[in-house]
Parts: sequence; C-alpha cells; structure tokens
Amino acid sequence: MGDLVERLAQGLGEGAVAVDPDVTAAYAHDMAGFCEAGRPAVVVFPETVEQVRHVLRTATDLRVPVVPQGARTGLSGGANAVDGCILLSMTRMNRILEIDPVNRIAVVEPGVVNAELSRAAAGHGLAYPPDPSSWESCTIGGNIGTGAGGLCCVKYGTTSEYVLGLDVVLADGRLLTTGRRTAKGVAGYDLTRLLVGSEGTLAVVVRAVLALRPAPPPQLVLAAEFRSTDEACAAVCEVMAKGYTPSLMELMDSTTVRAVNEMARMGLPESTRALLLVAFDGPDQRREVAEVAALCDAAGASGVVPAEDRAESDLLLQARRLSLPAMERLGTTMIDDVAVPRSRLAEMLTGVAAIAERQRLTIGMVAHAGDGNTHPVVIFDAGDAEETARARGSFDEIMALGLELGGTVTGEHGVGLLKREWLARELGPVGLELQRQIKAVFDPLGILNPGKTL
Amino acid sequence: MGDLVERLAQGLGEGAVAVDPDVTAAYAHDMAGFCEAGRPAVVVFPETVEQVRHVLRTATDLRVPVVPQGARTGLSGGANAVDGCILLSMTRMNRILEIDPVNRIAVVEPGVVNAELSRAAAGHGLAYPPDPSSWESCTIGGNIGTGAGGLCCVKYGTTSEYVLGLDVVLADGRLLTTGRRTAKGVAGYDLTRLLVGSEGTLAVVVRAVLALRPAPPPQLVLAAEFRSTDEACAAVCEVMAKGYTPSLMELMDSTTVRAVNEMARMGLPESTRALLLVAFDGPDQRREVAEVAALCDAAGASGVVPAEDRAESDLLLQARRLSLPAMERLGTTMIDDVAVPRSRLAEMLTGVAAIAERQRLTIGMVAHAGDGNTHPVVIFDAGDAEETARARGSFDEIMALGLELGGTVTGEHGVGLLKREWLARELGPVGLELQRQIKAVFDPLGILNPGKTL
Ligand SMILES: Cc1cc2nc3c(=O)[nH]c(=O)nc-3n(C[C@H](O)[C@H](O)[C@H](O)COP(=O)(O)OP(=O)(O)OC[C@H]3O[C@@H](n4cnc5c(N)ncnc54)[C@H](O)[C@@H]3O)c2cc1C
Ligand SMILES: Cc1cc2nc3c(=O)[nH]c(=O)nc-3n(C[C@H](O)[C@H](O)[C@H](O)COP(=O)(O)OP(=O)(O)OC[C@H]3O[C@@H](n4cnc5c(N)ncnc54)[C@H](O)[C@@H]3O)c2cc1C
Repeated sequence: MGDLVERLAQGLGEGAVAVDPDVTAAYAHDMAGFCEAGRPAVVVFPETVEQVRHVLRTATDLRVPVVPQGARTGLSGGANAVDGCILLSMTRMNRILEIDPVNRIAVVEPGVVNAELSRAAAGHGLAYPPDPSSWESCTIGGNIGTGAGGLCCVKYGTTSEYVLGLDVVLADGRLLTTGRRTAKGVAGYDLTRLLVGSEGTLAVVVRAVLALRPAPPPQLVLAAEFRSTDEACAAVCEVMAKGYTPSLMELMDSTTVRAVNEMARMGLPESTRALLLVAFDGPDQRREVAEVAALCDAAGASGVVPAEDRAESDLLLQARRLSLPAMERLGTTMIDDVAVPRSRLAEMLTGVAAIAERQRLTIGMVAHAGDGNTHPVVIFDAGDAEETARARGSFDEIMALGLELGGTVTGEHGVGLLKREWLARELGPVGLELQRQIKAVFDPLGILNPGKTL
Repeated sequence: MGDLVERLAQGLGEGAVAVDPDVTAAYAHDMAGFCEAGRPAVVVFPETVEQVRHVLRTATDLRVPVVPQGARTGLSGGANAVDGCILLSMTRMNRILEIDPVNRIAVVEPGVVNAELSRAAAGHGLAYPPDPSSWESCTIGGNIGTGAGGLCCVKYGTTSEYVLGLDVVLADGRLLTTGRRTAKGVAGYDLTRLLVGSEGTLAVVVRAVLALRPAPPPQLVLAAEFRSTDEACAAVCEVMAKGYTPSLMELMDSTTVRAVNEMARMGLPESTRALLLVAFDGPDQRREVAEVAALCDAAGASGVVPAEDRAESDLLLQARRLSLPAMERLGTTMIDDVAVPRSRLAEMLTGVAAIAERQRLTIGMVAHAGDGNTHPVVIFDAGDAEETARARGSFDEIMALGLELGGTVTGEHGVGLLKREWLARELGPVGLELQRQIKAVFDPLGILNPGKTL
C-alpha cells in the first residue's frame, strides 16, 4: 500500500492524495441504504485528464480496484468503496469548457455540478434538461454514470438523450474519444450510449459533449387531488392518451403530502390519497392547464387547483422537491426506483400499498407519473433489526412487483450494489452473459468498480 | 451448398428459400454506388422469430456468412451480398403487433415499412418521427440497422431516440431481449442503443419496441433564397442561436433546384445559390415563420416566401423530397452523408464547391441544414472511367473535409462497405480496437455481415 500511495502521488498534484482514515471513510459511500461499503486504501483528486490516466495506469500495474466518484449522491451504492480500492473523486475536474449557442452544445469536465451547468446554460438562453432532484449537488459525471433522470424527463428525456460524445480513460489508462460534436452521427457502434449508465464499470468519464436546448418558458403547474390512486393514475393515462405533452407530471401520496406539510407548513390537502402535479411550458400552457384541469375533474378529482402564475407554480413544485427530505424526517428511508409502463401505474401503487400493509411499514410514494417511474420510499427504524428486515423484504417485493408488471427494477438510479441480483433477473441469462463479456472488453482485469452492477 | 439449402429449407416455410441466380442476384445489393456485391448462395424469407433462429443456427453450424436485409434502400452497401452468403430478407416479417396510445409505444416486426408504421400511428393521433426520404419503402429493421435520420430530426431526433427495446437473434441463434417497454430504464448496459446503427453486424433485429409521439400539427413552411451559401448558412446559425426549434430546416443548392424544376416544373427560383426551407409545427408557427422570414431578410435573402397554408407548405416540401430523384436524371449519382457542427456548414459548402471545381464535376447539395448534415450528390458519367475516378476522388475529399471541420463521415446513412476506411480514420486506433472486440463478443465466428462497417 505504501507503494500504491507513493506511485499515485508521483503523478498527482499537491493535496490530491488522501490516506487519513477519517477522510477516506468519509468518502467510502454514497447515499444508498442497505449497501455495504469496503475500506478504501486512498482517495485521489485528479485535476487533469493526464492525472486520471496516471491513476488508472498505476491501478492496472498494481492490480488495485478503482471506484470513480462524483458527488456521491447516488442511491444504489454505485460509488461505494470496495476494500483496498482507490477512490477516484472527479470533483476537482469541474470546469465548463465551452457553451456554444449555435451548435447548442456544452463541453464539460465530469465534476461540474448539474445545477452549475444549468445556470451557465441559462446565461445563454439555453437549458440542460436532465434535472435530478439532487441537481444542486450531483455531478455531470455521476449523471452520466447513472443515466440520471428527473422531473422534466416526461417531455425532454433523460441524460442518455443529451450525451453526444465522451472522452473516457480506460482501465489501462488509454484515452478513448467516442461520439461526436455534431447533431447527428452514426459512425460505428454507439459507444457513447453504451457508456451512459455504465456506473463507472467500463471507463472513467473525463470530458463530455452535451446537447443543450433552448430554455423553455417557466412552467405553469396544476395540482389535482384524488380520493384514490386508481383515479389519479387513470387521469395520468388519460392525459397521455389525449396527446398532451406535459413538461412534468408528478404524483405524491398522502404520506408524502403530510410529511411535506409537517416540514414546510405548505398547507397541502392532507385528506388526499393522491396529489397529481401536471405542468406545461409551451406557448399554449394556459389552455393546456385549463383542459387538463377539466380532464382531472371528469376523472373524479376532489379538487383541482391550476396555478395562476409563476409564484404559485413554484410553490407547488417546491412541495414536490421537498418530498424526499421531508420523508427522511420520519425515519430511515430506503428509496426505490421501479418504472412500469404507465398503463400499469395504478396496479403498481395498489401493489405497493398492499406490500406496506403486509409488512406493517409506512411506504411513501412519489412518482414521475408521466414516465411510470415510481419511487416508493420505505420508512423504518434502522435501530430495530426486525423492522429493518421487513423493510428490506418489502424492497425486494416492490422490485418483483415491478418486473411482474412489465417494468424495470431501475428507471433512473442505477443498479450499483443494491440491485445486482435483480438486474440478473431482469436481463436473463443471455443478456447477462453479453453484458459480462462487454465489461471484459473494456476492463479485462476487472479493476473498474468491481462488484457493481453485474 | 446443396447441404446449406436443404438444411435451411427444413426449418422454413413454403417459398421461403430462393436459389435461382436471377433472384439471388436481384437481392445482391442495396442502392449505394461504388460498392461491390458478392455472389449470394441463397436468399431466405423467414416469417417467424423461430425461423430466423433456425437460419442463424444453420449458418453457425456451417460457418456461412449471413447478410440481414430490409428493403435494400441503404446507401452504404451495408446490405450487399458477400460471396457464398445467406441473404436474410426480413421483409416478410412485416406485422405491426401493437400500437399503444397510453404508453405511446409501437411493437413491430422489422420488415414493417416506415411509412406503414407512420400511417398506423397516425390512426391513433400519434407519429413515429424518424422520416428518411425513402420512407415509403425502407423498413424499420433497416432504419434500426443504420440509425436512420430524415427531415424532422432537427426537432425530433433520429431512430436511436425512438428505440426502447429490441428482440434480436444472435449469430448462434440465441434470442436476446434488450431494453424495455417503459418510458425510462437504466438496468445494465444500454445494448439497445449499441445495436441501433450496428448495420446487421451484431445481431438480427426480429422485433422492436418503439416510442411514439403525439402527431404534431401540419408544418408551416418558409422558403428563403440567398445569393450565396455563406449567407444561407449564416441564417441557419442565426435561427438556432436565437432559440428557435424548427421542425425542418433544409437547404438545396442551385443544381438541385434546377434539377427539381426540370423534373417537376415547380417554378422554383433558378437564379438562387441556396434555397433554405424552414418549417414550424408548434402552436406559434405563424409567428415563428414570420419572425424567421424577417431574420432571413436581414441575413441578406434575395427573396422570402412564407407559405400561406398547408397546400403551399406541402409543395415546398415536395420540392425537397424530389431532390434526389431529380438529380438521378442528370447522370449516375453518388450521395454522400457528412455531418459537421452547424457553425461550420458554410465552410463545408464552400469546400465542396471547391472540390467540384477542382475535379471538374457537378456536385449538387442538399442538406439537413439544421443538423449540419450535408448530402453532397456527385453526378458523373459511369460510362466514363476517368470521370468515374474523379467522382470517387471527390467523394474521398468530401469526407476528409468533413473530418477536418470536426464532423463525422456519416450523419445517418451508415458505414457499410463504402466508408470502412474512413470509419477507421474517424475512430482512431483505440476506438477501432474496442469496436472490433465488441463485434467479437456478439459474433465470435464473424458470420454476421462480415466485412461491413469495421
Ligand atoms: C435527494 C436526492 C434526490 C435524487 N433525485 C434523483 C432524481 O430525481 N433522478 C435521478 O436520476 N437520480 C436522483 N438521485 C440520485 C443521484 O443524485 C443520481 O444518481 C446522480 O446521477 C449521482 O450523481 P453523483 O455525482 O452524486 O454521482 P456518484 O453517486 O458519485 O456516482 C454515481 C455512479 O456514477 C459513477 N461515476 C461518477 N462519476 C463518474 C465518472 N466521471 N466516470 C465514470 N463513472 C462515474 C460512480 O462510480 C457511480 O457508479 C437523487 C439523490 C438524492 C440524494
Ligand atoms: C431515395 C433515398 C432516400 C433516402 N433518404 C434517407 C434519409 O433521408 N435518411 C436516412 O437516414 N437514410 C436515407 N436513405 C438511406 C436508406 O433508406 C436508409 O439507410 C434505411 O434505413 C435503409 O432501410 P432498408 O430497409 O432499406 O435497409 P437495408 O438497406 O436493407 O439495410 C440497411 C442496413 O441494415 C441492416 N439490416 C436491415 N434489416 C436488419 C435487421 N432486421 N436486423 C439487423 N440488421 C438489419 C442491413 O444489414 C444493412 O446493414 C435513403 C435512401 C434512398 C434510396
């Protein structure tokens, strides 16, 4: 290990190598529950592509595992340390290298925080759409690692749609450039998109060419209360079947609503079984909000509140943004991320409610309803071993339910450590074998984020 | 070979195996120029997934190459026969299995013609956006094979954006399901998008889950004439820099305009150096067309004609749709497909004009200008060996120019046989090596479309 640290230090800058166990322990895990973290040997903070290559070359020479990290806001343990590893923190490579309004691209280093890029793009009248709720802290490198989504994906798509090209460092230190700076391109296999969502297991992203869009006008939001989740989900389906393209369509259940009220005194309607937020950002937003309000009414909503203006809209969005922090006040939380075809959303919600009841647990529900992407939040007392076991059990039941409904075990958070077994079930043996072989192409020695995903 | 045909026939239906040399020769090539085609052993027309598996198993057992084919409208030789191969025509697997308006997906077999799917989707108020100009004949399988684009990509993206999941048969006959039916999903490496654009070299697509969108309203089109391509390209950049999102932005040069007039007597302005078509399909289209008209005026347009209604719009679009057939009347044509960052479009056009002059050739130009995706059309007399050599030379010069300008050698037509060497230049050695290794994972014996792409 002395050798490892010494060799790493030779190619890195001042203060770029941390071995103090307090420091390394602080970097050992992301924000996922139920995930073990190993004991890292060292944390490194490269500032240049050349330094990253040096780290990977050293790791290959010494056969030491490397775990790439962004802001460690991940919810699947993907950034967790493995024993004896180099934690490769990309947070100091955080420059926005280019914003180009004519070509509508940004070129960034991976440590750029999502919200920083959004703000920089906004300065040019542009937007980088993927907006995970963690946007004020998570990094573009982490977003690419997980294929992050967010609230606006129902209209604008996820990270994968916005990554045009990448510079990555391979496990052996070679530099690979994929993709393009052009709007279109089909030269060879699409390695760019193979890398998006690969959770640091194939290569380390050191630079990204991202597509930007013209900034949309502020959203106009509508809130609708329903007496049952079935009715709310039927409204979601109806909105989509009628051909609307909302810029956001989120659902919160009563547990979530109550938690938000408790934290922020927002006066949301606690009697509701499901609160649906629908937003539009196009030139016809007033008409669309009015029509969808009527549609919700007809679908049995017990109350419909179209925001009058931007301030009211922001308030409603704020309620959604606060859902997770609010639920965290209720106990230890375990956030799931199962996506189902939106036509089966109602069954998913009913099924999760049944699981909660059977396991005698509180499970709050927030969902990117327009995408069928649910986040059941299991709340439990981590000090109570028996309850913790039930929480863990419910988590598995939720994933089984998702697959049963034709869904996927992860809509946007990734597999990491948390869902490895479930990934294998979802992929089946042929898919799993191919994925393993692809991993071996990129990382024949298995030093990149070993034990994650596959 | 007797053995091959017999074994194939055992697992296929009546009339599904053709060995008549006239028939096999007719299937031996796609629509690309400058591409050799080998002599196929047999053409097969499976109708079920099981039959495709039988073909691949047989091919693997006997080590016979297999070339998957759609409608053979390809422009890179990707579907061309190799000596002794099985031509695997997917055209009889042409059922639309599902159109689901709530989940906004279609499930189709690969032989479905693009326009058939569009019409079926339109019946539900939906659209399948990728719209190659060959849409009345090309197949979804071919579109997935090439990662096809079209006119509306500037707003709606290309095939890759619309493929959610695939069923594919591997070289050894195993069936692999990739991706999902859900709007979002990040479970494992994105094999779906790795397969899009893989030109039949990795696997045979037998079923696809495609995303649909609400059908947009008809486009309102504006035509602007410019006295120089520089001015026209500056207008293109200006439209994008100002934050407009046109649903189409196409450029035709004077050669193209004249050819279209000659064929269809459309009365387009022949004096123009560049005719720019810009369309909008949103609720604000009248305002947008008027504003972009003013913008073109200010950018030096010598004439600006906003369509008054749908009929006028269709007429202008028709002119664009006829560009290639019209140029084909002028001689043998060789269509290139170089995409550059749109900020460099003007340099690309100037550069191509210089190449035409130097090589004493006519090179017409149509371009998906909004995407920076140019289609220089080299026109020559195929009976004249010396001129043909110059045509071939100009083609290479055009690709070199594209790379020099930070572009890609193929924006949407693919690599096939035509651009193999150029692909290697574009990817560089590390990229090429990884791509080869990925090919070996899917097809270790190298029987799937050998000699294509890589
Ligand atoms: C409160 C909260 C809300 C959230 N909301 C959302 C949401 O709405 N949508 C959503 O999708 N996610 C959400 N997340 C999850 C998380 O923020 C995302 O997964 C995010 O993309 C992680 O980014 P990060 O920088 O924190 O990456 P990390 O957690 O550090 O890493 C994530 C993965 O990417 C890999 N990685 C990181 N950087 C690189 C690199 N440069 N090269 C290669 N691999 C790399 C890591 O190895 C790891 O596997 C939320 C998390 C929290 C805590
Ligand atoms: C007049 C004209 C206009 C055109 N305009 C455009 C345009 O605007 N945009 C554009 O992108 N292209 C355009 N093209 C090119 C061509 O139409 C596209 O490349 C189209 O996607 C090819 O479809 P196809 O069914 O003809 O496939 P083919 O030519 O038969 O095959 C194309 C490739 O896909 C592979 N393939 C086919 N089916 C399968 C399958 N089931 N599984 C695996 N691999 C398969 C083949 O092996 C081959 O490599 C045009 C062509 C013509 C002739």
